[in-house]
Amino acid sequence: MPLANFSKKQIRKKKGVIGLIRVTTFNDDHLLNLHGKIIEEKFPELKVITKCIENQPKGIYSFESEKEAIPKIISTAKILKTKGVQAIIVSCANDPGVKTLKKMMKMPIIGAGSACASLAFMLGERIGVLGITDFPPSPMVKILGEKLIAYEKPRNVNTAFDLAKNEQAIFEAAERLISQDVDVLALGCTGFSTFNMANKLEERFNVKIIDPVVAAGAYAHYVILMNN
Amino acid sequence: MPLANFSKKQIRKKKGVIGLIRVTTFNDDHLLNLHGKIIEEKFPELKVITKCIENQPKGIYSFESEKEAIPKIISTAKILKTKGVQAIIVSCANDPGVKTLKKMMKMPIIGAGSACASLAFMLGERIGVLGITDFPPSPMVKILGEKLIAYEKPRNVNTAFDLAKNEQAIFEAAERLISQDVDVLALGCTGFSTFNMANKLEERFNVKIIDPVVAAGAYAHYVILMNN
Repeated sequence: MPLANFSKKQIRKKKGVIGLIRVTTFNDDHLLNLHGKIIEEKFPELKVITKCIENQPKGIYSFESEKEAIPKIISTAKILKTKGVQAIIVSCANDPGVKTLKKMMKMPIIGAGSACASLAFMLGERIGVLGITDFPPSPMVKILGEKLIAYEKPRNVNTAFDLAKNEQAIFEAAERLISQDVDVLALGCTGFSTFNMANKLEERFNVKIIDPVVAAGAYAHYVILMNN
Repeated sequence: MPLANFSKKQIRKKKGVIGLIRVTTFNDDHLLNLHGKIIEEKFPELKVITKCIENQPKGIYSFESEKEAIPKIISTAKILKTKGVQAIIVSCANDPGVKTLKKMMKMPIIGAGSACASLAFMLGERIGVLGITDFPPSPMVKILGEKLIAYEKPRNVNTAFDLAKNEQAIFEAAERLISQDVDVLALGCTGFSTFNMANKLEERFNVKIIDPVVAAGAYAHYVILMNN
């Protein structure tokens, strides 16, 4: 048995508890918890408690919808805090509410957009972003700086809910990015994570793909590793 | 037995192999392998193979010493590549040779300086850097941007080797940074990692400390997680 690789201490180590905010209202528990499950699968040391904002079934897809969501994200974070989470992930590539939450709360607040961009910055030199809005998410633009070479959004996609039925358009948009010699493709919407687009793109194209939900999980994992 | 938390697949998972370049010449194997051991301890999924550059016992502490080191770092990376490593860490906060290696090699090249700054950027808003040179390491300045609030170097410290005997001066320099309301202190020299300064500072001051060797390990861990 190769069990000797793991010390008793590691096996018994308590899991770190992370709060995750979905910026779309879900009634279905499976869909609600999906991003949390992705993180728990990649980082078995983490347990993720998910809550979504209320009365926003279409999520965030414009300036107005983001403005409407931010106060709800802040109140959701306050609820998660009472549950004893050690860090909070805002699962949206635009990092809505992240700046305010960082000022309000002592615990680490991880925006999926800045997490995705930070990892892309570390691993690539010519970075493309694939998103759902007309312009790339602003925290990603800020972090990527001159490494941001190109941005694309798939045809017919205007909200995260349009992604599932437009897989071909996503592949075409990715191809337009990759033809510009990008070495890392950062996904600029956590809607892509919902149906594992990073893996599908990586299988088709020979380029590193950064998934924003997994990226946020990676930073949460670091935070827990340092605290526990 | 709480073994059920780990699936057989996890227990049997092969370790990821990381190459690590020390930019100081060591004859002592314990000292040589110390940064690798720090990473293996934090990230048990990683095995680290360390090699140091030759004929540079004082390491990198100036423009000239960096210029001398870069071709040696590149040839050391080539040797590590032949050993089948999946990513290479350059264990110096100035990221010497990292840009060239990224162009030369297909595998991920992780500079300890940019790793440290990227993590600090994610976790802080007002960031202080503690280093050993007159100015902060340039990759850290570039990544931190306007979040870089202050920089200090301890009195009487000019190379990484001066750190061990100047602990009091390090505490004083850290205090000068923290008095400027920094919320994250990023260590701008991997020499601090050698004697666990991050923990000592965290115990004394109520501020998050980012260790450049651990930060590099965190990115290497992500790379391995995605590849294996």
